[in-house]
Amino acid sequence: MLSKRYTDMLSEKDIIFEIAGYGRQRSQEIGAGNVFDFSLGNPSVDAPASVNQAICSILTQRPALEVHGYGPGLGIMAVRQAVAQSLNRRFSMNYGPEHIFMTSGAASALAHAFRAVTQPGDELIIFAPYFSEYKPYSAGAGLTTRIVPADVSAFQIDFEALESLLNPKVTAVLVNSPNNPSGAVLSTPTLKRLAALLEERQKAYGHPIYLISDEPYREILFQGTDCPYTASLYANTLTCYSFSKSLSLPGERIGYLAVNPAAEEATRIVEVCSQISRTIGHNGATTLMQLTVGACIDQTSDLAVYQRNKDRLYQALLEYGYSCVEPGGTFYLFPRSLEPDAYAFCKKAQQLDLLFVPGDVFGCPGHFRIAYCVPEEKVIRALPRLKELAELYR
Amino acid sequence: MLSKRYTDMLSEKDIIFEIAGYGRQRSQEIGAGNVFDFSLGNPSVDAPASVNQAICSILTQRPALEVHGYGPGLGIMAVRQAVAQSLNRRFSMNYGPEHIFMTSGAASALAHAFRAVTQPGDELIIFAPYFSEYKPYSAGAGLTTRIVPADVSAFQIDFEALESLLNPKVTAVLVNSPNNPSGAVLSTPTLKRLAALLEERQKAYGHPIYLISDEPYREILFQGTDCPYTASLYANTLTCYSFSKSLSLPGERIGYLAVNPAAEEATRIVEVCSQISRTIGHNGATTLMQLTVGACIDQTSDLAVYQRNKDRLYQALLEYGYSCVEPGGTFYLFPRSLEPDAYAFCKKAQQLDLLFVPGDVFGCPGHFRIAYCVPEEKVIRALPRLKELAELYR
Repeated sequence: MLSKRYTDMLSEKDIIFEIAGYGRQRSQEIGAGNVFDFSLGNPSVDAPASVNQAICSILTQRPALEVHGYGPGLGIMAVRQAVAQSLNRRFSMNYGPEHIFMTSGAASALAHAFRAVTQPGDELIIFAPYFSEYKPYSAGAGLTTRIVPADVSAFQIDFEALESLLNPKVTAVLVNSPNNPSGAVLSTPTLKRLAALLEERQKAYGHPIYLISDEPYREILFQGTDCPYTASLYANTLTCYSFSKSLSLPGERIGYLAVNPAAEEATRIVEVCSQISRTIGHNGATTLMQLTVGACIDQTSDLAVYQRNKDRLYQALLEYGYSCVEPGGTFYLFPRSLEPDAYAFCKKAQQLDLLFVPGDVFGCPGHFRIAYCVPEEKVIRALPRLKELAELYR
Repeated sequence: MLSKRYTDMLSEKDIIFEIAGYGRQRSQEIGAGNVFDFSLGNPSVDAPASVNQAICSILTQRPALEVHGYGPGLGIMAVRQAVAQSLNRRFSMNYGPEHIFMTSGAASALAHAFRAVTQPGDELIIFAPYFSEYKPYSAGAGLTTRIVPADVSAFQIDFEALESLLNPKVTAVLVNSPNNPSGAVLSTPTLKRLAALLEERQKAYGHPIYLISDEPYREILFQGTDCPYTASLYANTLTCYSFSKSLSLPGERIGYLAVNPAAEEATRIVEVCSQISRTIGHNGATTLMQLTVGACIDQTSDLAVYQRNKDRLYQALLEYGYSCVEPGGTFYLFPRSLEPDAYAFCKKAQQLDLLFVPGDVFGCPGHFRIAYCVPEEKVIRALPRLKELAELYR
C-alpha cells in the first residue's frame, strides 16, 4: 500500500499550481504576452554573469575529484568560512565556520532547523500571512503548527494574539522577513519586542525558544527600509538562507543554516544537522554550487527591477483605489481584495487575464498576492487592467 | 532543548569516519604516500571530460533563467525521458518519464522510496552485509529494520533466514547489488527465487511487498558477471540510482528513482514523491546537474581501473592465504578477517598502515572491507603489506 500520509497530501488542492497551470493553458490560447501571470515567485532576472564564470573557472582550474567529489557533511570548510565572514562583515556578527551548515536551499535549511531544536509533538508558532510550505515542513518534523493571525494594518506582529498562543510546549517560533507574500519587513521595534517577549517566556518555561528566521529575500530590500538582522537582536536565532533570490539560482538548491554563536548549544546544533541529514536523504549541498556561491558570496543579480516594478504597481494600486501595505522588500505586493472573498476576486481578475493568488493560501483571507518578478514591460501593460478591475467594483 | 533523537545519534561512534580521520592524521606524520587508506568508498577516477564540457555548453547555450530556474518538482521532463529511454534501451524495460523521479543522489531516492510505499511502523527487510546508512534512512521513515544474516559462502541470499523474517508487517525489502561492502552481485537464480517468494507472500498477506533495489554500483561490473536488472524480474520494484559512481559525481548529489511500470500504482508512487519532498526539504535535484546527466546519460568515467585493482588484490589475497568471495562489481572486496574479531584484525592491519573497515559496521563480523577506489600504484605497493599481515597470523 502506498503511504496514506503522502497520498492524502496529493488530494489537497495546490491553488498556486492550478493558477499557474491555467496561465500556461491561457497563454496557448491568446499568446503569453497577453496573459499577466503574477502567480509565481520565480526570479525574473538572470544570475549575474559572474556565476557562470565562477562555475567554468572552478571546472577548469580545480581537480575534478575535488570539485565533484564528496564534500564534508556539514559543507566545504572554505565556503562555510566565506559565509561566516560575509555575515560578520555585513551584520557585525561573529560567526565562525562552525556555526554554518550548507544546505540544499532554504527548504533544506528549514527542514534541518525544525528537527534540530525541537522534539516531535512540540509546537511551532508561525505568523500569517505565511509561505504555504511551512505547514508540510513543520508536519514533516512532527511539530504542531500554531498560527498567529495577521496584523493586516502593517504586517508586523499581533503581539496580543502571539501571547495568547505562547505556552510551554512552544519550542520554536518562525519569522520570515522580508515576507512572502506581504513584502513587509519586520522593523527593529517589532523584532526587539518579539525578542523581549521570547526571552521572558524562555525564563518562565525553563527551556529555550529558538527563533527560526527564514530570510531568502534578505537581499531584495527597497530604499529606506529598516531591515534589522534578526539574529543580532535575539541570541537563540537560527537563520535560514537561500541563494535562490539573491543570485537567481532557485533550481540549484543552495543555501545555508547559520546558528547565532550566542545561541545555546550553537555548535552542537550544527553538528546535529549532520545526523538529521542521515535520516532525510540530504547528504550535503552540491559541491559545485557550494564552491560557486563561495566565489560569489557578496554578489547579487541586478535586483533593481523589483524596486521599479514595486514602485509602479504600488503607486498605481493606490491611485486606482486599492488598499495595500507598502512592501519593504521581496517581489510581492499583498493588497486587500476588492471584495471579502479573495477567491471570487481573483476569479474576476482572471477574466481580465490578470493572475493573482488569493490570500487564503497564505492564511490571510481578504487579500491577494501579486508576484511582480516579471519583465517591467509586463507590469506597465498590466496597469490598465488593474484599473479596469477596480472599476468593476465601483 | 536540542532534539534528543538526533543528539543521541551524535554519540554513536562512526567507525569509518574515525578510520578516515586516523588516516589523515597518519598521513601528516609519515606522508600520504605511505598510508594505505582503503577505508572510504570515494571514486578515484575523474568524471569523464564530457561532463565538464556538458556543463559549460549548457551554461553558454541555454538561457540562465532556464538553467538555474526552478525545475518541476518531479524533475525536468526531458531528463526523465532520457533516463527512461536509457533504461529501456539497456534493460528492455518500458519506462516512460512518468515513472522517473529525479533525486539528490541515491540517498534521496531511498528516502523517498521508503516513505512512498510503507506506513510508519511497517517492517523493512535488509540483507547483511549492508551499507550502514540504511538503518538511519529506514528509521527516518519510521520503519523497523529487520536484518537477514549474511550468506557468507557466496553473499547471495540466505532464504531460510529470509523466510523466517517475512510476516504481514513487511511491506518493503531492500536489495543492493552490486553490493557494498561485499562487491557481490545477486545472480539471476537468486533474484528469481526472491521474486517468487515475494510474489507468494504478497498473495498470502493480501498487500504488495515492494522491492527497493539500490543500484549505485550498477555500472561497475567485472567481466563475465551475470547482473540481471532487478526490476525486470519482479513487478513491484523501485530502482534507486545515483550517478556518483558511474560518472564520479558523488558531491553533485544527482540520481533518480525509477518505478517499474508493471508495479502496482506505479505512476502514483512517483506523484507521491513530490509530497514527500515537501516534508523533508528536498525540493528537487539541482537543475544544472539534471541537465548535465541528461546530456551524458550513457557515459561513464573510465571504470577499468577498478577491475584491474580488483584482479590484482583478489589474486594476491588468495595467494597469501586469505579467504574471499570474488566480487562481481563495485570497488570493494570483503575478505574474512584472519582472526574472528575483525576490529582486532583491522587494528593489526593499521600497524602496517593498511586501513580497512571491520565487517561489523556492515552487519557481518569476521570480515573486513577493502575499498580499492585508489590509484593502481597504491594497490601494487600495498600487496607486500597484505602479505606481511597474513604472515603475522601464520
